[in-house]
Amino acid sequence: KQTGSRLKCRALDVKNTDAFLKGRLFQLDDVIEAQQFDREILSAIFEVAREMETIEKKSRGNQILKGFLMATLFYEPSTRTRLSFESAMKRLGGEVLTTENAREFSSAAKGETLEDTIRTVEGYSDIIVMRHFESGAARRAAMTANIPVINAGDGPGQHPTQALLDVYTIEREIGKLDGIKVGLVGDLANGRTVRSLAYLLAKYNDVKIYFVSPEVVKMKDDIKDYLTSKGIKWEESADLMEVASKCDVVYQTRIQRERFGERVDLYDEARGKYIVNRDVLSVMQKHAVVMHPLPRLDEITVEVDDDPRAAYFRQAKNGLFIRMALLKLLLLGW
Amino acid sequence: KQTGSRLKCRALDVKNTDAFLKGRLFQLDDVIEAQQFDREILSAIFEVAREMETIEKKSRGNQILKGFLMATLFYEPSTRTRLSFESAMKRLGGEVLTTENAREFSSAAKGETLEDTIRTVEGYSDIIVMRHFESGAARRAAMTANIPVINAGDGPGQHPTQALLDVYTIEREIGKLDGIKVGLVGDLANGRTVRSLAYLLAKYNDVKIYFVSPEVVKMKDDIKDYLTSKGIKWEESADLMEVASKCDVVYQTRIQRERFGERVDLYDEARGKYIVNRDVLSVMQKHAVVMHPLPRLDEITVEVDDDPRAAYFRQAKNGLFIRMALLKLLLLGW
Amino acid sequence: KQTGSRLKCRALDVKNTDAFLKGRLFQLDDVIEAQQFDREILSAIFEVAREMETIEKKSRGNQILKGFLMATLFYEPSTRTRLSFESAMKRLGGEVLTTENAREFSSAAKGETLEDTIRTVEGYSDIIVMRHFESGAARRAAMTANIPVINAGDGPGQHPTQALLDVYTIEREIGKLDGIKVGLVGDLANGRTVRSLAYLLAKYNDVKIYFVSPEVVKMKDDIKDYLTSKGIKWEESADLMEVASKCDVVYQTRIQRERFGERVDLYDEARGKYIVNRDVLSVMQKHAVVMHPLPRLDEITVEVDDDPRAAYFRQAKNGLFIRMALLKLLLLGW
Repeated sequence: KQTGSRLKCRALDVKNTDAFLKGRLFQLDDVIEAQQFDREILSAIFEVAREMETIEKKSRGNQILKGFLMATLFYEPSTRTRLSFESAMKRLGGEVLTTENAREFSSAAKGETLEDTIRTVEGYSDIIVMRHFESGAARRAAMTANIPVINAGDGPGQHPTQALLDVYTIEREIGKLDGIKVGLVGDLANGRTVRSLAYLLAKYNDVKIYFVSPEVVKMKDDIKDYLTSKGIKWEESADLMEVASKCDVVYQTRIQRERFGERVDLYDEARGKYIVNRDVLSVMQKHAVVMHPLPRLDEITVEVDDDPRAAYFRQAKNGLFIRMALLKLLLLGW
Repeated sequence: KQTGSRLKCRALDVKNTDAFLKGRLFQLDDVIEAQQFDREILSAIFEVAREMETIEKKSRGNQILKGFLMATLFYEPSTRTRLSFESAMKRLGGEVLTTENAREFSSAAKGETLEDTIRTVEGYSDIIVMRHFESGAARRAAMTANIPVINAGDGPGQHPTQALLDVYTIEREIGKLDGIKVGLVGDLANGRTVRSLAYLLAKYNDVKIYFVSPEVVKMKDDIKDYLTSKGIKWEESADLMEVASKCDVVYQTRIQRERFGERVDLYDEARGKYIVNRDVLSVMQKHAVVMHPLPRLDEITVEVDDDPRAAYFRQAKNGLFIRMALLKLLLLGW
Repeated sequence: KQTGSRLKCRALDVKNTDAFLKGRLFQLDDVIEAQQFDREILSAIFEVAREMETIEKKSRGNQILKGFLMATLFYEPSTRTRLSFESAMKRLGGEVLTTENAREFSSAAKGETLEDTIRTVEGYSDIIVMRHFESGAARRAAMTANIPVINAGDGPGQHPTQALLDVYTIEREIGKLDGIKVGLVGDLANGRTVRSLAYLLAKYNDVKIYFVSPEVVKMKDDIKDYLTSKGIKWEESADLMEVASKCDVVYQTRIQRERFGERVDLYDEARGKYIVNRDVLSVMQKHAVVMHPLPRLDEITVEVDDDPRAAYFRQAKNGLFIRMALLKLLLLGW
């Protein structure tokens, strides 16, 4: 954000990617939404994430971010995401200021704007990781702040680091992204995770996507239309076994009870419909994997956990490496 | 607190300032109330705060407080103040133990005294920063503790670091404290900020203070009498424009809704009365500044933010430097 | 946990102590319950705790755990215990990830199992300190985790670090454990502290235990039977003065109001019955001490605090040394 000749915030003008990409060098100023990343930037971030794996495993007490302070400004709790970011920062020698009850900053009683809060917090830290309950809050924060902002989820909007770690996991597990077949299973209507993933997969060649979901939570048309416009093949299926036998990745998601209101009957019907269990494993290819954004209920049975193709805990761990990479890139650059 | 021949706690006997001041050397044991500081001590603290500005800007990863542990014992939440202290500690290489729900320590159910809590926490840390809901709690803590205690606000009582950063900001922005004209605007009856500021300004020469407030929240007589007794000129005014045109500092404050109970009509009348906007800016002198303890609602309009005379975010940042200075002085001495 | 030929988790098979003890060398993998420690292991841990006292006093900024990350996974708040662990970690140069509201992980709404949470958190940290509301939760966590787990209290179950610090305090204060006389006073029925302490004392020779408690909260038969089976002499007494005059340690505990439900009358009767005050002190031997797990209400009067035999704040501090020792042993080994 220091260079006046560049756009103030890359994420705020996602069309102009080229200006930020020169060979493998580009300027990453904020992480606001999955759409800000193109294929080359994803590849570059993943390369750094691989370096981070090495650092985490072999270089205990790494200090490349020594002296940097990250503020985790969480307007709603998300312990899992917060711990992942804080671990990432500390694994690189950085320090953390934590707020789990950041709503207090902008409480109705006091009425401070998000912008004012950001102007204060940027005086105390070098980077802000923000979780907010309102869609678009991260972008507003980034426009205000003179330090980098990472969106750790803003309401029904974006959760870009989850999208990045999902794509990174596929590449790590399958070895490639072009030409893969991915089955998206479960709640495809409400899960921002699968929507972002579908969006990012459209950047690769010859990808085939299968949607397997109960009728009430089917993938919405906007994503289907988008995939079609990008030449990505997709189909809907009610046969999880057949899809599982063809796919490189079976990406299971949780049916979220809170989406069904008082229709517990619909919820119960939906959640029991597509379960990943040993039967599903038995038809999957040897190199294929099962993924899940976690937390899970019983949509993947515990018996699956011990199979080497159960990739969901490795996926969670990859979130650490992706976040380490982003912190490194935002604070130190390439 | 180690030196038996001195008073155990400087703040506990604010009359005897001289004993603690030898040239520029004095012993700072606790920070309990604004009254404990005289002009010379303020000047010395501000000098250290200036060094802290340099450290924060140029010496990333400074380690002068390495190995020191600060416990932030907050009996009521105040994210802004807590983050400021924790950032200060970490900017100097120190570490932090955080409690945002310290009330649990002394819950009615368990009934532990503050004194017992302090005796326990002092075993785990090197300095205690405490926020409490009861006036006088900080002093009680300081009398018990064998390590330094900083009052981060005790109920309607004191918030001395806010008072220090206010005076520091005036000196930084205006270049002097003697001879300045300050307009205190808004809720002067309930705001401990403006009361402490008036008290501290009385230590300087030829200061003139203007009180501009709705009738229901006028400055109380005790402060007026105190200023008079110290030879400080003050006057009340209902004309913000005229005051603004004369002052070096326009110190705006928030009208606190919670003070009005069910009299929403009085609240609405009071809060709309004195707004700092472009019109006010237009009559202010070029060197003058607008200050505010934050958070603000609409008592300063957003259009003021971009004017170089809008000093309130710099003021918030100065809180960091003041707290760094106090931590350095309390833990390392001069 | 790395060595396949050993048991995966020492604490999960407390019978096989010998395999883990070779001279003074043994493998400590988790800290789950007081029963996992025998006399030799206790002695070895206490030796390390003594080293930790020296480090804490003389070696500010010690870095032996630099690069290690501890996750404090607290499913119920316990500020005192959490601060003690976090201070211990930071005093040795380690870093901390804090969760005070870990219930969110396993909320009914989301329904994640403890095992899944542990698998995620172990990816972000090097050791887990867990407090849980369910008895047995720590053992389940230890069976799942590939990193060490310390039980910081699991419901009505165990709180082994409290038991260790109690025994350590007796040895530090009295100079020995064999042959001591200990009076356990107060709520002996519900306090897991006194139950664990009685259990551990049974490992020493010629110990004599006195139980002094209101009728409604008498020590239960299981512990009495256990002591008898181990050849430990015990007796019940209603005469605190007489017991105090004979004992090396008077271990007072808080009568917990929540155990009495609506029977406030019984609570009031019980809590007033055995108070440690100056009268009790006056009959105690010169070398004897008063202990208490804290927090206290008025079961020890404040006038006792200044007597050198009041050991309860030193006892709280010993918790720091014990936890430093355990973290060192679990992360670095002997």
